[in-house]
Formats: sequence, structure tokens, C-alpha cells
Amino acid sequence: MKIKVKVTLKNGVLDPQGKAIQQTLNGMNFSNVEEVRQGKFFEININENDETKAKSQVEDMCKKLLANLVIEDYQII
Amino acid sequence: MKIKVKVTLKNGVLDPQGKAIQQTLNGMNFSNVEEVRQGKFFEININENDETKAKSQVEDMCKKLLANLVIEDYQII
Repeated sequence: MKIKVKVTLKNGVLDPQGKAIQQTLNGMNFSNVEEVRQGKFFEININENDETKAKSQVEDMCKKLLANLVIEDYQII
Repeated sequence: MKIKVKVTLKNGVLDPQGKAIQQTLNGMNFSNVEEVRQGKFFEININENDETKAKSQVEDMCKKLLANLVIEDYQII
């Protein structure tokens, strides 16, 4: 089954890439863009039919590899 | 208001970064991971109270900057 994960920077962590995108958009006639924050998105295809087990495995993957918990939050969707 | 956007590679487009993550997970006792595909996630804070207008502006941003429509799909959520 396919599990989707969103990894975003925690509030307060600087996001220079998002800032660059915001400034570029402001210069492209999107002057009402106030903030952009960029995160990562993963689609994980896992050979496990039990949704609860699959999600718990993906949570484990987030903690061990996909997210840096010092500066990032993850959300399994 | 805050609009969220997901940008993912189209089906069939090679994703070497996702492949590397999948192989790493396989080597970390997650042997049942069959495929990983990585995408991008944006949170855009836009000074516009009308949701329809905000989403239509964000769609425009996706087409012009955030997504490469040759190889990527976007989804406004």
C-alpha cells in the first residue's frame, strides 16, 4: 500500500529556499505573497496490507531517515 | 490565507533520489519498501481573503515557477 508523508521545517527554523521563492514570486507580479515555506513530500510503496502496521513502519522510517527531528516535523497522510 | 501545494514527478519520470532513499531503507531493516518517490511541498501565505482567488493565483504560480510541467504535476490542497 501507498503511504504519503509530508516533512516540513519546524516553525522558527529559517527557510532560505522558501524566502528565495517568495522574493522571486514578489518580482513576478505576485506582490501579495507574504511567506513561502518549502518542505518535502514522500510517497512510499510498502508491501504491507495492514494500514496501521504500514503507518507505524513509515513513522519509524521518518524518525530514522526521512526527517531531521531537530529542525523538521513529519506528518503521515 | 495559507495555501498548500504538492509537486510530484509525473508517472514514468525517473526519480534517482527516491530510488536512493528506497535502497537505504531496504538496508535498514525495512525490506518491504518497494518504491519511494520524492516530491516537494509548499506552504504559501498569500494576502487574499477570497479562497477561490487565492487558489487561482497559486495555480498560476505553479505553472510559472513552482512546477516544471514537462516532468512534474502539481496539486493544490
